Amino acid sequence: MRNLNEDTITQAVIASLGGCGDTRLRTVMTSLVQHLHSFARETRLTEAEWQAAIAFLTAVGHITDDKRQEFILLSDVLGLSTLVTAQNHAKPAGCTEATVFGPFYVEGSPEYAQFDDIANGASGEPCFVGGYVRALDGQAIANAQLEVWQADEDGHYDVQLAPEDDGTHAHRARGKLRTDANGRFAFRSILAEPYPIPHDGPVGALLDALGRHPWRPAHLHFMIEAPGYETLITHVFRDGDRYLDSDAVFGVRSTLVAQWVQHPPGTAPDGSQMDVPFYTLDYDFVLNPKGPGR
Amino acid sequence: MRNLNEDTITQAVIASLGGCGDTRLRTVMTSLVQHLHSFARETRLTEAEWQAAIAFLTAVGHITDDKRQEFILLSDVLGLSTLVTAQNHAKPAGCTEATVFGPFYVEGSPEYAQFDDIANGASGEPCFVGGYVRALDGQAIANAQLEVWQADEDGHYDVQLAPEDDGTHAHRARGKLRTDANGRFAFRSILAEPYPIPHDGPVGALLDALGRHPWRPAHLHFMIEAPGYETLITHVFRDGDRYLDSDAVFGVRSTLVAQWVQHPPGTAPDGSQMDVPFYTLDYDFVLNPKGPGR
Repeated sequence: MRNLNEDTITQAVIASLGGCGDTRLRTVMTSLVQHLHSFARETRLTEAEWQAAIAFLTAVGHITDDKRQEFILLSDVLGLSTLVTAQNHAKPAGCTEATVFGPFYVEGSPEYAQFDDIANGASGEPCFVGGYVRALDGQAIANAQLEVWQADEDGHYDVQLAPEDDGTHAHRARGKLRTDANGRFAFRSILAEPYPIPHDGPVGALLDALGRHPWRPAHLHFMIEAPGYETLITHVFRDGDRYLDSDAVFGVRSTLVAQWVQHPPGTAPDGSQMDVPFYTLDYDFVLNPKGPGR
Repeated sequence: MRNLNEDTITQAVIASLGGCGDTRLRTVMTSLVQHLHSFARETRLTEAEWQAAIAFLTAVGHITDDKRQEFILLSDVLGLSTLVTAQNHAKPAGCTEATVFGPFYVEGSPEYAQFDDIANGASGEPCFVGGYVRALDGQAIANAQLEVWQADEDGHYDVQLAPEDDGTHAHRARGKLRTDANGRFAFRSILAEPYPIPHDGPVGALLDALGRHPWRPAHLHFMIEAPGYETLITHVFRDGDRYLDSDAVFGVRSTLVAQWVQHPPGTAPDGSQMDVPFYTLDYDFVLNPKGPGR
């Protein structure tokens, strides 16, 4: 433990974990130390670069609050989120694929009934979304909970907008609803548009330095829960979007790309008369049953 | 860029760096992405573990401010700081070795003259420190700037103590001084004592979970600058300390261990009469000349 140099430090740190009673934590930290050190050795990381990394992580920490999660954003743009999602969601063919969670999920969003307008004042062209939640054998899953969240026409989630006069954020274009006895869900919202991930912070500066753009293709977020099934966290992406092949967070899956269909003024899926054009999206989800012990 | 899975995501992220004009940044980030992904794959990192890592880094960011640098502490306890220091300070034999910077350096500490008491009210037994700053050939380096910082007898640096009534922190047991024409420095301070690194935050919780103690052997910090020489960032460690072989931040080097000598009341090195016991530490530093282009 004295006179540690670049050849001996890694084994010394690993040896210091010998008293760790949590076998899994010890395994994870051993691997972390090995890879962190290998990275520093392989790049011959300089002290100035180490200081820049400390300053970068500090800035990521300081911009993170209960409305903005810059560490998740960092994990997303480095592809770590997609990797972790992929290796934890190997599923039978036919199940809806998962993709990244993203930094804009918020606890406690409002509950809505079938055909309600979850936009709640968010700006954008009207869009009627509907579909079924089913099991692999095609059977309807009744009373499944869908949680939906999306950005408005300017590319902003509600939590990115200025707070209300009382300092709170209204829930806009996000909410929970349930499938009916036939496994059917339907709601009104707004058209999904492409948007840049928040790029006014350290992660944006990193993307800029890396010569990467911050854009994501238009999408809706879904989290779907039903007893006996794995929770599905995914997006539905809008076909034709120019960023489908360069998503800043590496989340696009072909099976999650769907058609948003434009309609002239007339009767909407909820029976209402629309005097402006509107969009419809139909998309069905197939949940993976929980395995033993999951 | 669509349908990326655990086998293809790493190459896709690396390919996305193709437009980066900064060759060094591209090299560093390519290596970082490879090792970060290898870590996640090798451990089959779960989503719950990923979430725990996001929450941990967020907590490290939130406890970090201008007085506490928890990311440096994290780097220190993972041995990264020692590795980066070691690989950037290969030196000719005879030069004083470097060790970790630590999280308690503060800009703007006060300037002192020879024999001044830099404790400035910090609690501890009196200690008189002196020595020479020299070149490899033994020649004195006059007017070198030494910056010194240390903890008090309770193991606290000034910045860890409650602020003054006006909200500022007094500089205690830290300061700058210069060598005289003979390369000699001398100052009064307090006895260095072992102390635990700050362990009331996320890094302390990590050490606890890992079964590791947070203690560091007693030491003084030095940063020494002189034109034409590499800046030396190092410690002097107190011989006999029980933590010399289990330093929580892996910083001990045998050549940096020195004797603190206890004396009965009497004449101190500055000529003053001490009516209490006191300590002396004599330690000489040898600076490494700057190479071409450094």
